[in-house]
Amino acid sequence: MSIRLMYASPEHDADLLYWSRIAVCDRFLAFEVEGRRYAISNYLEKEVMEQHSGFDEVLLPNDLTQHENPSLIDLIKIICEKFPTHDLRLPKNFPAHLILKLQERNIPFTLQEGEFLPERAIKLPAEVEQIKKACTIIIKAFEHIRSILSRAKVVDKILYDHGEILTSERLRSEIGKVCFEGGAIAKETIVACGKDAACPHHRGIGMLHANEFIVVDIFPRLIESGYHGDMTRTFLKGEPSEDKLKMYNAVKKVQSQAIEEICAGKNAKEIHAKNIEMFTNMGYISNDSSGFFHGTGHGVGLDLHESPSINTHDHILQVGEVVTVEPGLYYPHIGGVRIEDVILVHEERAELLSNFSYDWVV
Amino acid sequence: MSIRLMYASPEHDADLLYWSRIAVCDRFLAFEVEGRRYAISNYLEKEVMEQHSGFDEVLLPNDLTQHENPSLIDLIKIICEKFPTHDLRLPKNFPAHLILKLQERNIPFTLQEGEFLPERAIKLPAEVEQIKKACTIIIKAFEHIRSILSRAKVVDKILYDHGEILTSERLRSEIGKVCFEGGAIAKETIVACGKDAACPHHRGIGMLHANEFIVVDIFPRLIESGYHGDMTRTFLKGEPSEDKLKMYNAVKKVQSQAIEEICAGKNAKEIHAKNIEMFTNMGYISNDSSGFFHGTGHGVGLDLHESPSINTHDHILQVGEVVTVEPGLYYPHIGGVRIEDVILVHEERAELLSNFSYDWVV
Repeated sequence: MSIRLMYASPEHDADLLYWSRIAVCDRFLAFEVEGRRYAISNYLEKEVMEQHSGFDEVLLPNDLTQHENPSLIDLIKIICEKFPTHDLRLPKNFPAHLILKLQERNIPFTLQEGEFLPERAIKLPAEVEQIKKACTIIIKAFEHIRSILSRAKVVDKILYDHGEILTSERLRSEIGKVCFEGGAIAKETIVACGKDAACPHHRGIGMLHANEFIVVDIFPRLIESGYHGDMTRTFLKGEPSEDKLKMYNAVKKVQSQAIEEICAGKNAKEIHAKNIEMFTNMGYISNDSSGFFHGTGHGVGLDLHESPSINTHDHILQVGEVVTVEPGLYYPHIGGVRIEDVILVHEERAELLSNFSYDWVV
Repeated sequence: MSIRLMYASPEHDADLLYWSRIAVCDRFLAFEVEGRRYAISNYLEKEVMEQHSGFDEVLLPNDLTQHENPSLIDLIKIICEKFPTHDLRLPKNFPAHLILKLQERNIPFTLQEGEFLPERAIKLPAEVEQIKKACTIIIKAFEHIRSILSRAKVVDKILYDHGEILTSERLRSEIGKVCFEGGAIAKETIVACGKDAACPHHRGIGMLHANEFIVVDIFPRLIESGYHGDMTRTFLKGEPSEDKLKMYNAVKKVQSQAIEEICAGKNAKEIHAKNIEMFTNMGYISNDSSGFFHGTGHGVGLDLHESPSINTHDHILQVGEVVTVEPGLYYPHIGGVRIEDVILVHEERAELLSNFSYDWVV
């Protein structure tokens, strides 16, 4: 048996948030042994933690030792002594200063390879509900954005709304408002038009142009629970050129096909390889910075990017995993297209958690 | 000379955000040597980082080595080889898995004692402006809260607004809206009434009562820059009892006195000790869970709680430090009072960055 131990803040560490269920901004020690989860808190936080957190027990340092002001390493030592037959397992991002002290005191430990809480990849029904809720908020934002783009006027290929130039910043701010009203925080939202859209992580700057792709990628986090949604739609105001039409349809075809293919037991690497192959067969060649040069998808949950990944690594998909499916194509002279949904893996056909139209020409 | 090196995400690490100035959600390597700051990025992020980050140079792994897919530890080794006379300094929360690999490869390193970027404590004028901006948003939220409390009706000691019971949750949500409209995210806002207020970190739950303290602690973070403000006011709707009146005045007196006392060159520990002494002299005895049992203040910036602290530790205050001053008194049978402002330390009198009335009976 193992003692799984962390020293982190749930605000900045999704593993600890998975245990604590409430955000606390300062770091604290937490451990799990024989299925029971313990937090070592202080007088300031103890009552809140006892009432609202997911811990089975909230201890004060003095519940473990008579020493006044025991150090963190003292506390870890005491925990290990309480469970002498258990090995101490730590996350790979465990703080260096404590690792050096464990070594000094000859306290044996193992760094967990891979994910510290691999069980996080399989979502419980309540977690799926939270992710779906976040996607529902994103859908509201997309509806709002589409209505703004629809009513926008085009003058000299520049988009105007109510007489003002329509910008990435303005749409980003509108998305932020809709998400906030829904109970989620949207940070770093991408509204990237034209050349900006050809760079998959470019947030987008300045005025929006007609007849160009506008990639809108929204990935808010629910304020209360911390779960994310993550969806992308690509819009175009005006008339798509032939090459844009073809490029959009290629991405849509690959995305639908990938969603269709995904089910428990399949290797994620093969799904990804097949997407690349489909693009290549349609004439879309990829290299390090153009074509399709990112993964097909990633797990979503308390972290925006979490296990499993759908990319060049082996991973056998499992029932209960929640992943994005987001192929894209990017060419500096044309722009970029990405379409992203969130799905829940089942034995058979995957379940779409982000049901929103793919109409793109507004 | 040192190479200061981090492997973190600016979204979760304020030191790295201090360098990068933009939020990036995934971890990356960054280092500073001879005053120049470098990020090691990937194709997806490179352009964004070059255009918008605070780094002097944004490198790809292949700018450092011909190897395909060099590991993190390979990259760190190469960086050390490029600057052989420089010692490798790491933050104390550097990830354990990389520490173990440094040890395996006999790459010498030093963990930085205390703060990794101690220069963060001294705020630049642009940073002070950001913190002041965050405080201005908090002040708007307080004005809004006071107007709601003023118009609230009391029936059987319970507060009602427009016929509905007024709750901690409702005020927290109103505060969230005002902050968001101002460009900041308010998480974990405290609106704690009566017994809840006697626990300094209790967020507060349920209906608000007349004639009881309502502690409102707001500490939003600016969406764009990541800087925090942090202010607390304690309100009371109705008539304060004699002991509440006395308790509020005691806290106000200690807080004013502490702000008056703070200037460069003074020891923060003495400021804190004097506060405790003042409370004791007024008959307010403290122990581990009642009276005045937290620090007088803390630095505020990209982290909500950062250096320096004003508590039981020695620290000579310096020009440019931005700290909270937030004494409080907490007694389960009376409730709690805390008053918190943010000040900028000067040679002489400190400058108040959070100018808002202390009228508390509404």
